[in-house]
Amino acid sequence: MGEFRVIEVKRSVFADNDRRAEELRRRLREKKLFLLNLMSSPGAGKTTLLTRTIQRLGGEMKIGVMEADIDSDVDARRISGTGARAIQLHTGGMCHLDADMTAQGLEGLDTGDLDLAILENVGNLVCPAEFDTGASKNAMILSVPEGDDKPLKYPLMFSACDAVVINKTDVLPYFDFDMDRCRENILARNPRARIIPVCAKTGEGVDEWVGWLREQVEMWKR
Amino acid sequence: MGEFRVIEVKRSVFADNDRRAEELRRRLREKKLFLLNLMSSPGAGKTTLLTRTIQRLGGEMKIGVMEADIDSDVDARRISGTGARAIQLHTGGMCHLDADMTAQGLEGLDTGDLDLAILENVGNLVCPAEFDTGASKNAMILSVPEGDDKPLKYPLMFSACDAVVINKTDVLPYFDFDMDRCRENILARNPRARIIPVCAKTGEGVDEWVGWLREQVEMWKR
Repeated sequence: MGEFRVIEVKRSVFADNDRRAEELRRRLREKKLFLLNLMSSPGAGKTTLLTRTIQRLGGEMKIGVMEADIDSDVDARRISGTGARAIQLHTGGMCHLDADMTAQGLEGLDTGDLDLAILENVGNLVCPAEFDTGASKNAMILSVPEGDDKPLKYPLMFSACDAVVINKTDVLPYFDFDMDRCRENILARNPRARIIPVCAKTGEGVDEWVGWLREQVEMWKR
Repeated sequence: MGEFRVIEVKRSVFADNDRRAEELRRRLREKKLFLLNLMSSPGAGKTTLLTRTIQRLGGEMKIGVMEADIDSDVDARRISGTGARAIQLHTGGMCHLDADMTAQGLEGLDTGDLDLAILENVGNLVCPAEFDTGASKNAMILSVPEGDDKPLKYPLMFSACDAVVINKTDVLPYFDFDMDRCRENILARNPRARIIPVCAKTGEGVDEWVGWLREQVEMWKR
């Protein structure tokens, strides 16, 4: 298992988060570093999908991961086991990350040689959607057990995301989850969302997700 | 399907939420009205458990439900179908309810003849734990697909709850969820938590949950 640092990110004193997020995005573009902000409910499978993603992309690009959590370092432990560079961000009770906290995390991660940095945001479908982190793109995971009605109940999160991964497709037979209805619910809120059903546990569908991500990283570097 | 109102609860202007929560709790005690604050992640099964609870307890006590959501009235529709009095609270993007918002909801619910009021809080394991709503007791649902490590990652939520319902036990065979490890993780944060495994869908274990709730309502009225 690899080593990782734990960083206590401080609540931002800056009221103008949107402006700071734009600044961070501009700096990332200059450095040709793609930052993905990955969001979901607790337990939707962010860390498992990231582990798969690192396995698939780790040979062709240099990846670093920031695991944000209120407490604990369960996730950074898992990610550092993949060999990718990982740090744990503790938010001190905060329910989301803003652009300044993200910038603090990137500094701690040491991004000089990275192509792709991934921020695993706090597990929460509400607050993280309200704060632009400065990421190049936003993605979220909705897992099958959560239900196909979630886009109706958390519209801002679904609108804020460029890609929506629908995870845990292996348990579709055991849940009353209608994939078509879910797609409709997502597209009604966000017509441009890229919807990718996967099973991070078995690897099914992960090719499409990795393909989307690779394309985004390549476009960002142009 | 029954009728229900939609109430837009306003963000509280009061900084002293703890004092206002205590005041609300005192008023509830005087009125012999028990208020349960039910919390969980999105999709853990709050509304399904409530539907079961109303079916079991509706004959012996008068129940009202406040469905809090950022948007949509999916849940109030489902609850009003049970014949219980239901209202939908819209939080206007807020990720939690505080004591004043809860009091606004109770006013809208019209509690004069009720024995039990239930607040279905916003689906979120972070923010609702930080705000005392003034409820008599707090309960939460952790669903099996979310994983047995959630008490490590959302410690405040697990500490704040008097009862932890572990829902969706019917899918235990399909997930890597260790019930004993989960119990240990919960009790390490909250040694007095009452832990109740249920399957709200099939009704398994719901007797124990309903028994706990009945006991709390009776004790509150003494």
